[in-house]
Amino acid sequence: MLPFARVTIIGLGLIGSSVARAVKAAMPDVRVTGHDADPQVRERARALGFCDDVTDTARAAVIDAGLVVLCVPVGAMGVVAAEIADDLPADAVVSDVGSCKQSVADALSAVLPGATIIPAHPVAGTEKSGPDAGFATLFQGRWCILTPPANAPEAAVEALRAFWQRLGSDVEIMEARHHDLVLAITSHLPHLIAYTIVGTADDLGEVTQSEVIKYSAGGFRDFTRIAASDPVMWRDVFLNNKEAVLEMLQRFSEDLTALQRAIRYDKGEELEALFSRTRTIRRSIVEQGQDDDAPDFGRKH
Amino acid sequence: MLPFARVTIIGLGLIGSSVARAVKAAMPDVRVTGHDADPQVRERARALGFCDDVTDTARAAVIDAGLVVLCVPVGAMGVVAAEIADDLPADAVVSDVGSCKQSVADALSAVLPGATIIPAHPVAGTEKSGPDAGFATLFQGRWCILTPPANAPEAAVEALRAFWQRLGSDVEIMEARHHDLVLAITSHLPHLIAYTIVGTADDLGEVTQSEVIKYSAGGFRDFTRIAASDPVMWRDVFLNNKEAVLEMLQRFSEDLTALQRAIRYDKGEELEALFSRTRTIRRSIVEQGQDDDAPDFGRKH
Repeated sequence: MLPFARVTIIGLGLIGSSVARAVKAAMPDVRVTGHDADPQVRERARALGFCDDVTDTARAAVIDAGLVVLCVPVGAMGVVAAEIADDLPADAVVSDVGSCKQSVADALSAVLPGATIIPAHPVAGTEKSGPDAGFATLFQGRWCILTPPANAPEAAVEALRAFWQRLGSDVEIMEARHHDLVLAITSHLPHLIAYTIVGTADDLGEVTQSEVIKYSAGGFRDFTRIAASDPVMWRDVFLNNKEAVLEMLQRFSEDLTALQRAIRYDKGEELEALFSRTRTIRRSIVEQGQDDDAPDFGRKH
Repeated sequence: MLPFARVTIIGLGLIGSSVARAVKAAMPDVRVTGHDADPQVRERARALGFCDDVTDTARAAVIDAGLVVLCVPVGAMGVVAAEIADDLPADAVVSDVGSCKQSVADALSAVLPGATIIPAHPVAGTEKSGPDAGFATLFQGRWCILTPPANAPEAAVEALRAFWQRLGSDVEIMEARHHDLVLAITSHLPHLIAYTIVGTADDLGEVTQSEVIKYSAGGFRDFTRIAASDPVMWRDVFLNNKEAVLEMLQRFSEDLTALQRAIRYDKGEELEALFSRTRTIRRSIVEQGQDDDAPDFGRKH
């Protein structure tokens, strides 16, 4: 049985267009309706054909929806939800794909009182943006975290779980606040640090930008991938998960200061001890199928 | 014409064994002699067969060498050089593959007075270690930086340039101090930051290690690759390029503090401006062939 017969996707960038493609691949009978606020994206989406229908307004996209998935930057969730409020079917499930969950839950429940809201976060993506960047297999073997509020109907939670499982994901249920803390360290802080170091390198005087680029294979280039992620999406993540990000950032800064001190005072054993410990974490990630064991991410040599 | 007829490699880990394999692949007539201080590595190197001969002492490895390449952690360069001093042919060129160059130049010239020393750094590697991890194509399309002292014979510099070009590298000449500054930002600081954040994640209480591993696809896993690099090699890099690393670290910390402040005070435009700027650097790296344009490093989805 299909978890939802009609799925509406608002926001047709990397994630939204990947959801659409994955639905058509896994559940060809589901009718997928899409909308994007940007007319150029709508035009491109129509040309690519990953939705059965692309509507010019958000309201028109939801009128017969069983599931509405908001795939816009987390700071825009409330605005989009307000736009669809009057046309949302009473029995529709409203979900999203945002990278922080408490702020989204608050924003949606404020403008959609009485609606069935189940925030979700597929932990998947690439550094590319836009409707051309999406692909149907993006969610396969990746985790999707649902953060249903306490009063969410169990049948709706199970339907959403089944939906993501059909797209190839493993599903986990979590409290929104805990999600935001976990993702602060596994995703938000890494992005913040990557953006920072790429900016630091860009500002150097003695070392030219062309040298930074030429010798980036020494490690720097890894950070540039993450730092090429969508600017608006990430601006919103940091502003909407402020507390958890600042907490993790504080811990990171303390640890970095300790390492700085170890370097300054030639404490080689301290450095080596940390560097040995971090190796085992990589091993666990590979063993649990969350990354490839191929050297250098399997880059061509 | 072969740049060197007999090449000796001391240290048969990832880089040393890759140099040996690359030499045999590109210049099959060159005689490659190897040595490693670890008897188990010597045994494994003999079994793998990437050297024509593996000697039990460093001294024995160099007696007829035209080029000696030291492929040991930078803190061990002086010790190894002292071991081979008495047996080194007068006309041999001594080089290395270390990630910092001024400290290596100082260490080698102190114990090998009168020898032709041309430090070098192939900017290539993976997170794996040991003789099994090496491969012949590691240096293809990567930069190799030579830092010859002012009095280095031009013919020797040109021979070493030709050697690395034969292995597939593009060769650049640079002053040792400038090299150390460039690599501090393109390689050393990225490694230090990756080691730090993986350590920070490992120390959390509220977020379990299993959660960190499960949801690492959100960005964190990228950092774990670099933080799985050889602990002794990296300990030595930080201790031997202290000044430049501390300088870059200071700049990075200032930039991170500025971002922290932007998040705390909701300065979204500041965040977005930086995040847009960093995207263009990624583009340059891809355009200049220093990384693949495939999304997510071309990982399988």
